[in-house]
Amino acid sequence: MSTMIGVLGGMGPLATVDFVEKIIRQTPAEKDQDHLPLLVHSVPQIPDRTAYLLDNQASPLKALSHGVRTLANAGVGCIAIPCNTAHYWHPDLVEISPVPVLHIAKACSDRLVQQSVRSVGLMATDGTLKANFYAQQLEQRGIALTLPDESLQRQIMAGIYQVKAGNLAEGGALLDKCVDAFLAHGLERVILGCTEIPLALEHIDSSNLAVGVDATDALAEACLHWYQQAQTPH
Amino acid sequence: MSTMIGVLGGMGPLATVDFVEKIIRQTPAEKDQDHLPLLVHSVPQIPDRTAYLLDNQASPLKALSHGVRTLANAGVGCIAIPCNTAHYWHPDLVEISPVPVLHIAKACSDRLVQQSVRSVGLMATDGTLKANFYAQQLEQRGIALTLPDESLQRQIMAGIYQVKAGNLAEGGALLDKCVDAFLAHGLERVILGCTEIPLALEHIDSSNLAVGVDATDALAEACLHWYQQAQTPH
Repeated sequence: MSTMIGVLGGMGPLATVDFVEKIIRQTPAEKDQDHLPLLVHSVPQIPDRTAYLLDNQASPLKALSHGVRTLANAGVGCIAIPCNTAHYWHPDLVEISPVPVLHIAKACSDRLVQQSVRSVGLMATDGTLKANFYAQQLEQRGIALTLPDESLQRQIMAGIYQVKAGNLAEGGALLDKCVDAFLAHGLERVILGCTEIPLALEHIDSSNLAVGVDATDALAEACLHWYQQAQTPH
Repeated sequence: MSTMIGVLGGMGPLATVDFVEKIIRQTPAEKDQDHLPLLVHSVPQIPDRTAYLLDNQASPLKALSHGVRTLANAGVGCIAIPCNTAHYWHPDLVEISPVPVLHIAKACSDRLVQQSVRSVGLMATDGTLKANFYAQQLEQRGIALTLPDESLQRQIMAGIYQVKAGNLAEGGALLDKCVDAFLAHGLERVILGCTEIPLALEHIDSSNLAVGVDATDALAEACLHWYQQAQTPH
């Protein structure tokens, strides 16, 4: 069985780099050879996920499926997708993938259970909110979820697209205020449920990172667990 | 013709991330879709390059060739290798690759010509020094090269292996002193000719980055040029 992990990335490219770096930093390693074998498909020429979900524009499913097939044909043993919104198509990709496809909201919700968190807010794209998979994963675990109101959600989206345009400082400042707005509701934690968010908050060295739950980091941890299990002889 | 760029990485994994980030930062982009399509083979289970070249240990050529074939079979249009030492096998990989394989020392030397540099020092692994390709590329361009003496080279190697072990602060401090030692010889610039070196100096925010010539960054620029030419209709 292959222990190489496929990363279906490019959504966006910097978030993919952030994800790979989070795998590396969580890996106990003393030399190159101790690190996880990865094949990273970072092909950003994929129709915008949120634009499809909200404005009925071109679907990214064909491009996502092509990425899964490229990774599977190249011999990966499982696939991770460092883009929350793309998980709208997770059921479709599981259908065509010959190898397991990890789920970012499952990884993130598992981490919340480990930390005994009972109430969270969710910062994510309009597309992820519409897809509703975070609500499902959290409900299964009995964790109360608060969604942003329309005005706050507009600010979150503005921040995310600033990051995608390379404006990390501006995007980070906007997103940081959004975390504050959530905390004003008395929530314990806030899920950073779009891969652009943690990298922007890290860029501005935000103190809100301590109350944020980094979905990218949780998926990186799930990769490490998968790799350790795949290496264990049966 | 495919415009996807294959990255033969994992040597080390953090240096591969640094390389991809340098491609992203040099790309004029306003949205995800403007970025370069990449397939990154970051499989660090490759025998140590320098250990083979100096101590006659296992050769990495088989693993490198496997990586090239994996990338080519997945449909990349060219390949870049963000590891200087691995370029010892560049002629062998060119031989088996159906697509062009860029050369990091060529990219770096081209940058020195653009900057009208006439004299440089070289910080690299023992293996890269033995392989001698920097000396060849620089001689062709009439740039004078100064190599470190034995004692300085030992310090450079110690710094590089600290970085590979994840000790970026310690490695960075060691490597920073090595740049100082080179500059004491009156050289204009120092080639950061091992991919671990620029990332360590960036980690400690070294002022020596201004006199260093970042080979990783030069290779990233060569990728961008290749992509822009590949997109131009003939």
